Amino acid sequence: MGLEHLVRATCVRCGSHYGTQGVYTCPGCGIEGILDLEYDYDAVARTLTREALRSRVGDLWRYLELLPVDSTRELPHPHVGMTPIYDVPRLAAAVGVRALKVKDDGRNPTASFKDRASAVGVLKAREQGSDVIACASAGNAAASLAGFSAAVGLKSVIFVPERTPEPKVAQVLIFGGTVLRVKGSYDDAYAVCQDACARFGWYNRNCAVNPYLIEGKKTVGLEMAEQLGEELPDWVVFSVGDGCTLAGAWKGLWEMHRLGFLSRLPRMLGVQAQGSAPLVDEYVRREGSIRPVEARTLADSIAVGQPRNWRKALRAISESRGAMLAVDDASILEAMRRTARLAAVFAEPAGACAVAGLTRAVEQGIVGRDESALVVITGNGLKDVRSATEASAQPIDLPADMAGLEQVLRARQLI
Amino acid sequence: MGLEHLVRATCVRCGSHYGTQGVYTCPGCGIEGILDLEYDYDAVARTLTREALRSRVGDLWRYLELLPVDSTRELPHPHVGMTPIYDVPRLAAAVGVRALKVKDDGRNPTASFKDRASAVGVLKAREQGSDVIACASAGNAAASLAGFSAAVGLKSVIFVPERTPEPKVAQVLIFGGTVLRVKGSYDDAYAVCQDACARFGWYNRNCAVNPYLIEGKKTVGLEMAEQLGEELPDWVVFSVGDGCTLAGAWKGLWEMHRLGFLSRLPRMLGVQAQGSAPLVDEYVRREGSIRPVEARTLADSIAVGQPRNWRKALRAISESRGAMLAVDDASILEAMRRTARLAAVFAEPAGACAVAGLTRAVEQGIVGRDESALVVITGNGLKDVRSATEASAQPIDLPADMAGLEQVLRARQLI
Repeated sequence: MGLEHLVRATCVRCGSHYGTQGVYTCPGCGIEGILDLEYDYDAVARTLTREALRSRVGDLWRYLELLPVDSTRELPHPHVGMTPIYDVPRLAAAVGVRALKVKDDGRNPTASFKDRASAVGVLKAREQGSDVIACASAGNAAASLAGFSAAVGLKSVIFVPERTPEPKVAQVLIFGGTVLRVKGSYDDAYAVCQDACARFGWYNRNCAVNPYLIEGKKTVGLEMAEQLGEELPDWVVFSVGDGCTLAGAWKGLWEMHRLGFLSRLPRMLGVQAQGSAPLVDEYVRREGSIRPVEARTLADSIAVGQPRNWRKALRAISESRGAMLAVDDASILEAMRRTARLAAVFAEPAGACAVAGLTRAVEQGIVGRDESALVVITGNGLKDVRSATEASAQPIDLPADMAGLEQVLRARQLI
Repeated sequence: MGLEHLVRATCVRCGSHYGTQGVYTCPGCGIEGILDLEYDYDAVARTLTREALRSRVGDLWRYLELLPVDSTRELPHPHVGMTPIYDVPRLAAAVGVRALKVKDDGRNPTASFKDRASAVGVLKAREQGSDVIACASAGNAAASLAGFSAAVGLKSVIFVPERTPEPKVAQVLIFGGTVLRVKGSYDDAYAVCQDACARFGWYNRNCAVNPYLIEGKKTVGLEMAEQLGEELPDWVVFSVGDGCTLAGAWKGLWEMHRLGFLSRLPRMLGVQAQGSAPLVDEYVRREGSIRPVEARTLADSIAVGQPRNWRKALRAISESRGAMLAVDDASILEAMRRTARLAAVFAEPAGACAVAGLTRAVEQGIVGRDESALVVITGNGLKDVRSATEASAQPIDLPADMAGLEQVLRARQLI
């Protein structure tokens, strides 16, 4: 359904308009010319109604009118999206806001937010007759792409930086994907992947430059709007690597406002890790360009030193009257503990980064103590067990005698 | 609601009936006297209707009439159950059955089936005024109990065998649980936990002996019946450790049949790992007793050498005209690969064990090639990355030059 509603693609850099077939980046601006897809929202509104949604299956395909896919094709079977949103008053108190909700996107099929993009990506690859789909990834997109390729019978090739956590590599391999480990950072892996796609004609899933992928990501915003309606909090908080997740979420929220599902829009708070914060840097400098950095943070999913989608992300911050800030790795580990213990959600470092950022935004007065917020946890902590272990106490070897056991238990106020 | 419908508890060994308050095992039979809870199904049927279910939230609390909890208390917030069921024709062809579905219970909050039991367990602990809840676990129940304890603000103490995979220990610790590592096997950890609960008055979550916990587990059967109705396949397949998961699922199916949601019941296939198969042994011998073994299998979640709930499990096999068999670890690893590549579900070894067992049951003529089956994947493979890595190919370090890269890609038919 979505394909018929697509109107045009617009370059986020120069504003030129294009048709929606076969163009991936603006011919005039090159790789900097990321495209944004526009739909005929009046046409969409005729069939995408509250009434219609009530009887649709609870996954991301419920928003087909707003997705750029050929819906006559078989959709990948893994159930993506409509992840739960919880009220978490104990975490709210710790963070310092009046009310807090978390949306646990680690509940997706391969345990991260990235499944929203991959579900669309493998369909686009199929539409274009590709047998092989490739991406560069710090880990989550890798596992996700491999899983969705397995679902539809595509071959996947994944370029990962050498320091990718073992669980994410294991996921790709078990799904039958080919993992090519690149010496260097995510940015190095990204460069090799771009070259390989151009040379071998593979379908390129890299979200940053592929305008279709962000359409999958925006479903998180569509969902929030449908799930919460007028209960949507004042602030929506995301961690930020490349920028396209926050930008996608904002697009989804904006569309639901345009369609009348929301009467007002929330403000967006984008949080980066201090060791990898070029968007925060540009948010402060406002020079209209990005200064690449060498990314250093344990939050590997957002360790992007040379972001590609920063224009879309900063536009979302600006349009929503939002803000950006950075937090250090120690705060991220502390947020992992708090999120697990006070909200019962085991977040990977990149997910917990958003919680840490909200805490800091309250301290700095950016977010008021009388305001409400929704934090999206973008990946399950099982994907990076080493960081979880670093954030935690150690297991205790059972003492040999009862006196020893009782001493341990008493110290922990368990008896 | 469920509490009012509880009629009595019956000992599975001697058949004596008891009230449903404060009794955990049959006073006459001791630890062997596992209890089974019965409900007033005519009363339940008055409010648990298809019509009523349509407007209830999609988690396990939708079956409150059939759960032994005080529903006036606040329910734990993590969203458990109503996990997706997929048609997987490519895996069906590989396994050799006419049609195959998988239910992905790794999609639960802490990524395993055990959350169904923990959700009920923490409520029962709260009802009884306990501040501390304990269990022995090979890993999944541990992570699950710690997560649900965090959700309701209970303290958790977990006894694990020394060889528990790191991801599962990391989960417990991040949720703030105390992990006591016991030298030896699951069975050793179980014994220490039983002693500690008795001595310190902690609430005992061990499923095997706690009759309330299996009521949480049965929701997987209730769901299958609701989700599939008359489309329910000929066989339902579970891996088996202690026996209470398969027994719980059967109870749920049986109840939905009793309530008129199903016109017929499926046959149950129970699969154990060869190195830990005392139930299969008794299924073959039919001597009315179990011979404990020293458990040796990589499928740690079902590595139970001294099962406690074998009577309930074997009764389910017998009542359903089902079967049991065992598979070796190599078949389990092969099933992990197949399930990931042909069904796009990353199963932990215990989950894949059920797929391996179904394959073997077809080879042996127990399950016909013209029959259909549903396999429940009880845990996500991220919980045991070491096994996934063992089951997989290795990542490839990017060759230094283009000629080297092309050679690698050609060998994999990627170009």
